[in-house]
Amino acid sequence: MKILLIGASGTLGSAVKERLEKKAEVITAGRHSGDVTVDITSVDSIKKMYEQVGKIDAIVSATGSATFSPLAELTPEKNAVTISSKLGGQINLVLLGMNSLNDNGSFTLTTGIMMEDPIVQGASAAMANGAVTAFAKSAAIEMPRGIRINTVSPNVLEESWDKLESFFQGFVPVPAAKVAHAFEKSVFGAQTGETYKVY
Amino acid sequence: MKILLIGASGTLGSAVKERLEKKAEVITAGRHSGDVTVDITSVDSIKKMYEQVGKIDAIVSATGSATFSPLAELTPEKNAVTISSKLGGQINLVLLGMNSLNDNGSFTLTTGIMMEDPIVQGASAAMANGAVTAFAKSAAIEMPRGIRINTVSPNVLEESWDKLESFFQGFVPVPAAKVAHAFEKSVFGAQTGETYKVY
Repeated sequence: MKILLIGASGTLGSAVKERLEKKAEVITAGRHSGDVTVDITSVDSIKKMYEQVGKIDAIVSATGSATFSPLAELTPEKNAVTISSKLGGQINLVLLGMNSLNDNGSFTLTTGIMMEDPIVQGASAAMANGAVTAFAKSAAIEMPRGIRINTVSPNVLEESWDKLESFFQGFVPVPAAKVAHAFEKSVFGAQTGETYKVY
Repeated sequence: MKILLIGASGTLGSAVKERLEKKAEVITAGRHSGDVTVDITSVDSIKKMYEQVGKIDAIVSATGSATFSPLAELTPEKNAVTISSKLGGQINLVLLGMNSLNDNGSFTLTTGIMMEDPIVQGASAAMANGAVTAFAKSAAIEMPRGIRINTVSPNVLEESWDKLESFFQGFVPVPAAKVAHAFEKSVFGAQTGETYKVY
């Protein structure tokens, strides 16, 4: 099995890579590093990545930027950064990637707990998470050739806790390695249209 | 009380107008008709609308276009129509409208059942609905001056059933007048961050 992992060098992506490469070949993609480079905010860059990679069995996204901003300072322009990356970028990975997947392949996208358990400054990220969750649930019923699509919604990561604790007070952080299991479940399991919550 | 209703001439908007104007002054806005005209895909047009309207007590959106397309034919470009209208347009109504609301004012946005009960060709609309739902829930915790924000998620409307039945087989359509009650609840009630489902 060949898995394309976008965002492989991030905190979450590194843990997902470690988990998945125990069982399969992992092709890594990232903005500045990896076997291939990709800017998910660019349709052309995504297309080029898929051309370079060829046929694969799973497309896993552990990437996507979101704007964190107090609501009163969140402008349409700042929100557009989230729309083009964590929201639209991840969805375009699906829209443009279907033909790169072998029969019975899968997509796995990343969302996050703030969509249902909000934090201050998190409205833009929540928007992206809600969008990707609903899109995946809906897209699942139309996937051709046995292709599946799921999302993983992690809590704040233990590895980011030092930096993010003040934003997530009272949350119980989870290790990235535990979240990685949900990606494994999505890639190697048989469910589709699911949101795997690791809270 | 003064209410700005965007999308007042639509099937849902007309019913919402009829309901709300029993109790308050309703200023209507629409793409081609109404007391003011607005194109919610344009930041400048939204700003101009708010300048024209002045201070109000409630901003209600019963508008937003979404692309319906088989998933295999849904391109990033077609999906961008939804992103700029039902998703981003409605969210920009909030981001740009906060200062137009009096203390204890409210926003009410429209989503739809497909975000949780998918239909074929509905992935793009589901994306928008999920985004707006999660955004509103999150934005609610940061609203200044007692301002509230809720969403209304209607089932398919009885009024649209002749046209849409083949897409929504097995769904039980609801009258627009019933959905309008949920808008009334959002505007005149005290809850915030809620999703009022009329299924």
